[in-house]
Amino acid sequence: MTADLLIRNARPFGGPVKDLLIRDGRFVAADCPRPVAEIDATGHVALPGLVEAHTHLDKTLVGMDWFENRVGPTRNDRILADRNAKRELGINARRQSARQILQTLAHGVLSIRSHVDVDTEIGIANVEGVLETREAMRDLVDVQIVAFPQSGMLPREGTLELMDAALKAGADIVGGIDPATIERDPVRHLDAIFALADRHGKPVDIHLHEPGDLGAYCLELIVERTRALSLQGQVMVSHAYCLGTLDAPRQSALIGQLAAERIAVMTVGSPSAPALPLRLMRQCGLTVASGSDGIQGTWEPFGNGDMLERAKYLAQRNGMTNDVDLEESARICTFGGAEGIGLGGYGLSEGCFGDLVLVPARTLAEAVALTPHRRTVIRRGRVVVNGGELAGDLPAIE
Amino acid sequence: MTADLLIRNARPFGGPVKDLLIRDGRFVAADCPRPVAEIDATGHVALPGLVEAHTHLDKTLVGMDWFENRVGPTRNDRILADRNAKRELGINARRQSARQILQTLAHGVLSIRSHVDVDTEIGIANVEGVLETREAMRDLVDVQIVAFPQSGMLPREGTLELMDAALKAGADIVGGIDPATIERDPVRHLDAIFALADRHGKPVDIHLHEPGDLGAYCLELIVERTRALSLQGQVMVSHAYCLGTLDAPRQSALIGQLAAERIAVMTVGSPSAPALPLRLMRQCGLTVASGSDGIQGTWEPFGNGDMLERAKYLAQRNGMTNDVDLEESARICTFGGAEGIGLGGYGLSEGCFGDLVLVPARTLAEAVALTPHRRTVIRRGRVVVNGGELAGDLPAIE
Ligand SMILES: [Zn+2]
Ligand SMILES: [Zn+2]
Repeated sequence: MTADLLIRNARPFGGPVKDLLIRDGRFVAADCPRPVAEIDATGHVALPGLVEAHTHLDKTLVGMDWFENRVGPTRNDRILADRNAKRELGINARRQSARQILQTLAHGVLSIRSHVDVDTEIGIANVEGVLETREAMRDLVDVQIVAFPQSGMLPREGTLELMDAALKAGADIVGGIDPATIERDPVRHLDAIFALADRHGKPVDIHLHEPGDLGAYCLELIVERTRALSLQGQVMVSHAYCLGTLDAPRQSALIGQLAAERIAVMTVGSPSAPALPLRLMRQCGLTVASGSDGIQGTWEPFGNGDMLERAKYLAQRNGMTNDVDLEESARICTFGGAEGIGLGGYGLSEGCFGDLVLVPARTLAEAVALTPHRRTVIRRGRVVVNGGELAGDLPAIE
Repeated sequence: MTADLLIRNARPFGGPVKDLLIRDGRFVAADCPRPVAEIDATGHVALPGLVEAHTHLDKTLVGMDWFENRVGPTRNDRILADRNAKRELGINARRQSARQILQTLAHGVLSIRSHVDVDTEIGIANVEGVLETREAMRDLVDVQIVAFPQSGMLPREGTLELMDAALKAGADIVGGIDPATIERDPVRHLDAIFALADRHGKPVDIHLHEPGDLGAYCLELIVERTRALSLQGQVMVSHAYCLGTLDAPRQSALIGQLAAERIAVMTVGSPSAPALPLRLMRQCGLTVASGSDGIQGTWEPFGNGDMLERAKYLAQRNGMTNDVDLEESARICTFGGAEGIGLGGYGLSEGCFGDLVLVPARTLAEAVALTPHRRTVIRRGRVVVNGGELAGDLPAIE
């Protein structure tokens, strides 16, 4: 029998002070403690595990030599630089994914959806590498793997077969990529990835940077296919910049269609890309998740994978300064992400998994605004990060 | 005789490894050391002191109770909330400015231009408070004080006289505020503040949020008055959002006019305001500075005053990811700021003041991208921050 873990005087999601009890890996009523270990969480806000709903674990350069970025400005420049880097820098997907996971664990990220490259140069090696890391880290973090055709699928023969192989090997989700600007054939691209999803019984997650009306058209195609295959709640669109640039009636109509099919939208709140109408999206009942996208890679050198800092970015991008808006931002990086990537047993209620992040802050808004770093992270009732430092008994990275 | 300070193996502004020697508060040739104290700066980039070219030292709530922000969305809502807060929260300008200065000193900010409110409720009390703090902190940081009519000048009788009194009391710079949307009379507002500047022989710094064509018109008025009074190099425009939204020919023409009169532009790179064309501005020879604006106040809860993080924000807002762009961002938050606010003896060359910030990073781009926190800060040859911690012998805040 493992001792219960009692967390005293926490403020769950910024609410009134409360004790939380974890028994056998789940929250239970705090009125029946057995012999317990205790944590005094006075002065801390308790959040459920932060959710990283969109990153690229196989591409981070964390812990490697500094990469001097001279990459050109277009998306294709970046895809090319990215593919070259895999070869020339010898990025090891297993090792690099482990490094990123441990770095973001220190911030309180306990669930990750990662796109992982599948292409005709590396085949499914990156998927296999991240699968190995997932297994090694299974007691620390949940990892979902999206088989992602970063270099294009239709234009590069053999990629579709590799996607199929990646899904057979253990990838959880079918990834898609700009159906028009990269794939040059929206209908055939989307038909292909939805067919893969249907055949494997797996969800879909599509990188959609397509602008304005082109993006809106692609979203309509995604809505149609989600409906036709009854994939409600199984589809996420990542970025969806077009939602930020349409005129208001078109924007509302499209958001309504997405909400009706329970298609989730992931936004990173990038300061240099169109801002999505977060308030409207949430008001329309759309599931909104967020992510870091690439961290310290060849695409961009920024990022630490802190999803509480991401909540701050979302607020700043949208000019949100009120406490209630900051709380909404925090919700996107926790509950929104959990719903978007389909996590079960998520939250701070009785019966949920005993996962939480204690952030030294007086209110939830303060936690978002100032993103304090000395957090304590608990997973399934075990302390894995103490005051910002990883616990000593974690798996090593070789 | 104070011992020299020798900083070994630093990389000045990310360049080749070099020793730096400080004698009697200034950099001198490193080949003639007298008995010295030494610092090993291996693995560190050396920056000159970070320059905070625009903040509001009298309004930060750092160290006070959490302010629950329920303020409405307009600029007038915020000005009103701000004025109420001064009264209701009892914000002490002397104490609060000291708190912010010490917080930002830990990041390496050694020069600050602060706007300080002057209005008919508080009179010039905030200017007097910040003047006291400036005196107490004079061995740590340079502070410039802008007499700032936050609540409006023309519409609130008596404010112009208070501005005059603030300048007599020791404020260094004449502040202006949106001449049309707040002052309701661009010509009379600008005539009044330029007349103050002329009479006191002091520079001008104008908050200009006016949008699009209205903003462009106000910029033209500022250009005309700068030329007429021969105030070249003495005028800064803060924010100047309109530069980010004009069409390209108009944008270039206006930037050219500003550069010709050596009018500096300060931008914070806000993610929710129009992005200024940084590359074009620098190419046209415009002096570009940056600042944090308000830190943790009633306007917005964000901000830590780290001007290296600000360089990252500028890059992110402009989608700049290349190493050379990140270096340019760092330049804005150091040399650009120094030029914009008119600092003498600034830089890492022989003869300059012996001020620097050692940032643990392999390259300047890495310093900007990752903004490491364990910095060592040296002012006039004295270590004032060691590995991110303030040295023990600094003045206390009562
Ligand atoms: Zn991505
Ligand atoms: Zn300001």
